[in-house]
Amino acid sequence: MTMAADSKIRLHELVLENGRSASPYVWRIRYALAHKGLAYESVPLGFTEIPKAFDGRFKTVPVLEMGGSMLGESWDIAEYLDREFPDTPKLFSGPAELAMVRLFEAWFLWEVMRRLFGLYALDVHNAARPEDRGYFRRSREARLKGTTLEAFTADRASRLPATREALYPLRTQLARFPFLGGASPNYADYIALGGFHWAASVGTLPLLARDDDGLRAWLERSMDLYGGLGRDPRLKPLFE
Amino acid sequence: MTMAADSKIRLHELVLENGRSASPYVWRIRYALAHKGLAYESVPLGFTEIPKAFDGRFKTVPVLEMGGSMLGESWDIAEYLDREFPDTPKLFSGPAELAMVRLFEAWFLWEVMRRLFGLYALDVHNAARPEDRGYFRRSREARLKGTTLEAFTADRASRLPATREALYPLRTQLARFPFLGGASPNYADYIALGGFHWAASVGTLPLLARDDDGLRAWLERSMDLYGGLGRDPRLKPLFE
Repeated sequence: MTMAADSKIRLHELVLENGRSASPYVWRIRYALAHKGLAYESVPLGFTEIPKAFDGRFKTVPVLEMGGSMLGESWDIAEYLDREFPDTPKLFSGPAELAMVRLFEAWFLWEVMRRLFGLYALDVHNAARPEDRGYFRRSREARLKGTTLEAFTADRASRLPATREALYPLRTQLARFPFLGGASPNYADYIALGGFHWAASVGTLPLLARDDDGLRAWLERSMDLYGGLGRDPRLKPLFE
Repeated sequence: MTMAADSKIRLHELVLENGRSASPYVWRIRYALAHKGLAYESVPLGFTEIPKAFDGRFKTVPVLEMGGSMLGESWDIAEYLDREFPDTPKLFSGPAELAMVRLFEAWFLWEVMRRLFGLYALDVHNAARPEDRGYFRRSREARLKGTTLEAFTADRASRLPATREALYPLRTQLARFPFLGGASPNYADYIALGGFHWAASVGTLPLLARDDDGLRAWLERSMDLYGGLGRDPRLKPLFE
């Protein structure tokens, strides 16, 4: 079967000043596409380019473009990919796995990503393209009710222990299985990896302790997935 | 097919003074057996009867007895039930769902059950059979490095807000799905229910705020499962 030229997949991504894709939600879809063996073209966008790029239709990336149509929201994209490409490896074996991954995501956003934002909010600002920094600061400081990014992250080192503790359930799981999804990686791995990619793209304070062997082994295995998709010399160290 | 008389299932359970089965791990298996439509006979045991009952072979319940053989550890029992009764509804649709439920359990034990123990350790003692209380106190206070159960729980009300916050991911999930497992309950529901049954079996301090509607609706639905298996007039209120 020959694919029509317009069925080529384009993935609209958020990039930093150094060109690296940094959004944890975009990384989910990068891994989802790799999981399914689907080739795609990256379309890099800065924070302030996103609303303009889609005439206001999407305010966030990822946005998947395929066959002339556009789809936003990482969960909608992931489910769409499983429906649209039923002959490629499935992201979700069925509705129960999907529900469980959503429950995992709820935990990960609440206990982990919130804390990571508290560590790296200023680092994201500083790593953004210069023309995006004003927007990033204004929008995030508004959410912080006027606290500056500098004040918000000033005592961040003191919050490292609680952040590392919050990762404990991942370590429990990785003492049992090579991946969060079990014997092979699933969308829960991609969600967590997205968070770690985001932290490693910007973080000037290493997230993890040197002796965090369980997480280190999983991160090494995971960075190697799909021909080393996650490997990038621009990454900052995740370990002290 | 006629089952041999000795293939009858017996579930060894931990009971309180009032006769109620209280172990969160036993409740998982009670729900697992109900999920699979398997009848069983309960064998009630107090804390101090458990080691004697099995000649030291099992130190904890649940213990499943079937066809003359005994099996401990709730995870081993759950997986055994799916293997042994392949024609009844499955607990796990496959290895990915099972791995995700284990990850959920790791989170639930770490963020929720630890906190519940901090709220209800003394209540468990007081609800235990009188002849079990000394053992319960000694073994738990040893784990607490000598802190008494009274001192450990003295300021428990001040820890309610953090405990309620820790349940946030459940609320997120239950805003999307009727059960943690999605459209229908799965083993993640049974794990969480086990925790709530334990709290409601002993707790003299209501765990949840009156307006916690998401959790309330799920608890009502869940208590009704399998002919109201969870309903029991001896339960203490979970809501303020």
